[in-house]
Amino acid sequence: MNIRAIFHYIGHILRIEALLFLPSIGIAVFRRETSSAYAFLIAFVVTLVAGQCLLFAKPHDRSIHAKESFVIVTLGWIALSIFGCLPFIISGYIPSFVDALFETISGFTTTGSTILTDVEALPYSLLFWRSFTHWIGGMGVLVFMLAIVPQSKGSGDSLHIMRAESPGPQVGKLVPKLRFTARILYAIYLVLTVTEVIMLCAGGMSLFDSLIHSFGSAGTGGFSNMNLSVGHYNNPYFDIVIGVFMMLFGVNFTIYYRILCGNFKDVWKDEELRLYLGIMLGSSLLISLNIMPLFDNNFATAFRHGFFQVSTIMTTTGYSSTDFNLWPEFSRMMLLGLMIVGASAGSTGGGMKVVRVLMLGKSIRGTLQRLLHPNSVKVMRMNGQRVEDGVMHSVYSFLVCYIGVAAVSMLIVSLDNFDTTTTVSAVISCLNNVGPGLNAVGPMENFSSLSALSKLVLSLDMLLGRLEIFPIIMLFSPGLWKRI
Amino acid sequence: MNIRAIFHYIGHILRIEALLFLPSIGIAVFRRETSSAYAFLIAFVVTLVAGQCLLFAKPHDRSIHAKESFVIVTLGWIALSIFGCLPFIISGYIPSFVDALFETISGFTTTGSTILTDVEALPYSLLFWRSFTHWIGGMGVLVFMLAIVPQSKGSGDSLHIMRAESPGPQVGKLVPKLRFTARILYAIYLVLTVTEVIMLCAGGMSLFDSLIHSFGSAGTGGFSNMNLSVGHYNNPYFDIVIGVFMMLFGVNFTIYYRILCGNFKDVWKDEELRLYLGIMLGSSLLISLNIMPLFDNNFATAFRHGFFQVSTIMTTTGYSSTDFNLWPEFSRMMLLGLMIVGASAGSTGGGMKVVRVLMLGKSIRGTLQRLLHPNSVKVMRMNGQRVEDGVMHSVYSFLVCYIGVAAVSMLIVSLDNFDTTTTVSAVISCLNNVGPGLNAVGPMENFSSLSALSKLVLSLDMLLGRLEIFPIIMLFSPGLWKRI
Repeated sequence: MNIRAIFHYIGHILRIEALLFLPSIGIAVFRRETSSAYAFLIAFVVTLVAGQCLLFAKPHDRSIHAKESFVIVTLGWIALSIFGCLPFIISGYIPSFVDALFETISGFTTTGSTILTDVEALPYSLLFWRSFTHWIGGMGVLVFMLAIVPQSKGSGDSLHIMRAESPGPQVGKLVPKLRFTARILYAIYLVLTVTEVIMLCAGGMSLFDSLIHSFGSAGTGGFSNMNLSVGHYNNPYFDIVIGVFMMLFGVNFTIYYRILCGNFKDVWKDEELRLYLGIMLGSSLLISLNIMPLFDNNFATAFRHGFFQVSTIMTTTGYSSTDFNLWPEFSRMMLLGLMIVGASAGSTGGGMKVVRVLMLGKSIRGTLQRLLHPNSVKVMRMNGQRVEDGVMHSVYSFLVCYIGVAAVSMLIVSLDNFDTTTTVSAVISCLNNVGPGLNAVGPMENFSSLSALSKLVLSLDMLLGRLEIFPIIMLFSPGLWKRI
Repeated sequence: MNIRAIFHYIGHILRIEALLFLPSIGIAVFRRETSSAYAFLIAFVVTLVAGQCLLFAKPHDRSIHAKESFVIVTLGWIALSIFGCLPFIISGYIPSFVDALFETISGFTTTGSTILTDVEALPYSLLFWRSFTHWIGGMGVLVFMLAIVPQSKGSGDSLHIMRAESPGPQVGKLVPKLRFTARILYAIYLVLTVTEVIMLCAGGMSLFDSLIHSFGSAGTGGFSNMNLSVGHYNNPYFDIVIGVFMMLFGVNFTIYYRILCGNFKDVWKDEELRLYLGIMLGSSLLISLNIMPLFDNNFATAFRHGFFQVSTIMTTTGYSSTDFNLWPEFSRMMLLGLMIVGASAGSTGGGMKVVRVLMLGKSIRGTLQRLLHPNSVKVMRMNGQRVEDGVMHSVYSFLVCYIGVAAVSMLIVSLDNFDTTTTVSAVISCLNNVGPGLNAVGPMENFSSLSALSKLVLSLDMLLGRLEIFPIIMLFSPGLWKRI
């Protein structure tokens, strides 16, 4: 295990984080929010010094393998969250460490679950930082590092890191050089975000609110600066703009790259994209029909809320335009299912990912055929390309680990003695990086009433969900720490 | 597709079912229950005639393949249930066809969910039939048929049927001849059941009640003739006897065969048995500690109820010694998890089966090792024997189908607009052939308030659970009906 290289990379991450505090410091100074200005300044210095100290540990050999990359990604995200929660603690707005950590992990992992009972009481600088963590975490911090920090040798090392951090069963490079791949992805991300900000401003939302809600939808996070979330504005235009943008950020970003390259045929034929849009449209329709009686049987209004909620839940963002906790059971159940399905691989969204669901479905078809014709050999294909057995095996393993993690988490959270729906939906929501759950953790409620133990377990679930379980589980695998 | 052979086998099944009505007719006559005596007599004649008619369709060729076996098992079970519900309808005690079908499928699949609000109002003959269906369904009707109906040729055909009906990922023969394997299994089943009857009678339970509760525990069904289930007696001796026997019937029956052969070493080393007993003991302890405050902090009483409930739920029987719906959330969540794990393969219990959980766990370990050392090759073993890739693949496929079936069922049942816990637990309970769920379908409640649609879906779930999904799904596969 190349410990020095691990320190080196984490040092880089912390230095980047320190720089990311700067916009919040600017806002705090500009808005004369003294206590948070000091808090951010202290956090800035502490994080910078910590990062610099780690960078002193110069590695003799900077090459890393798969196992180092798991450690870097996991510890990197934990370090980010621990230093990232300093402003909340120091400013006194979230005095408890567990609460502040929960809120920060919820931010970076783009979950959007909150322990705050009154979001609107927070100063602008803290609200900005809270939502900015979504935007940073959405595309991945280490991918960002790859894009800007010069690499020593070939991109072999970096590919390990990108694989460990990026969502989805397979990670590909858009262009031969990984650094340029990362830059292209971030450029698409930036352009889409700016477009959303402009469109929200055009509808009359203030620049600050537009930024907050664009960060939240770009990262598919879901933090709002309003207690009623997007429902605060009660404005169909905002519902539609944010609803559509969340949907766009739940698409695999390579799709946009292909569009930019003019490769429309592949886009149109992409099986994951088709299923993603199909599920989204189908679910929106079913839910709209189910909730029509709540909106005076007005289909247009019902569809507006139905689509918004489906988009927000399936992309695992977690905004709400209305309190879907009060919807009929069928709609609640649909949303719970969509939380698990999640968004597309290679997007900023969480959950199982549509492509995994698609692969599982295809694999079942194969099994049925083999049961009927035991000697037939069928090759599984995705977008025309053969799916290797190893990839399919990793999808199955992911599913099993996912179920195992969910089961253990539910058992621990159940010690708080909330009702079953609250316990189950809290875990599902956090593990899939959604945000709100049902009942006591519904969209108009928050996670403040849970015990510290539950908050820690759910924080871990958010990390497990964001990093897709394996990198974190590996840390507990004795094989990882063996010297060979 | 050899339609005539299918008719032939189903004809046999119906003839056997007609004979199985005879004990109930005897009880009805003996207890002078006129209306049910007539009902059973009519059901007897109708079923016998139907079976005989089907047997007229003499197949030119009695050989069947995998696909015929799926059809025989699925249609056989449906035919059994449709004719088996006749006495309930004709006697007028369950006038609705959907309700009667639900109750009968719940019986044959050894689920034990009931739509009866007052079980004690039923005449003895109907109560007997209701519980007798558990005993018949527990070991498998077709396996029973294999044991008594003479086979035409080699046992190749029968093995297909046994595979399709028997629970677990792999089905083996105890002795070279399948007929004798089936007979040995039924002999073990009979001896264990009789032992339980004797022990219950010895504790002062009436012979009739002893039979009812022995049928229920032997088949891991859970129908009682008391509204309060086993809790009616409030007798620690009965709790312990029934609790232990349920546990015994949740063990793979080949274990008993090995014990009879004196092969104790293999028994002691059996990985599924160890995990099964380990989970049962561990869960009982955790739940007992969790519910101690409900029993004046008396650990002995808490453990008695804890063990009984764990045994009844994990073996998917579904008796209750007390209302566990009122237990703390942690215990409820544990029980919900145990429902899904289920009993051992090759037992009369339902659920995913412990061996599948074990194989999934082992497979994850393999995946983690491959992530660390991409070039290592590890062979998965179970009880020292290599697990073929195909078997592992079928376990994964089962899991995925299981999740898919559960999700669709929950969505349909949610249309009834019960709370989430009721909907989810009703589906989990029926799909795993447990019996009671939580909240509105808890152990002191019943399924009568659900809509006809939900009852039909849950009935299908019970069949899917009992036959382990594939045989039924195959019926809907277009490939099955293609002529090649």
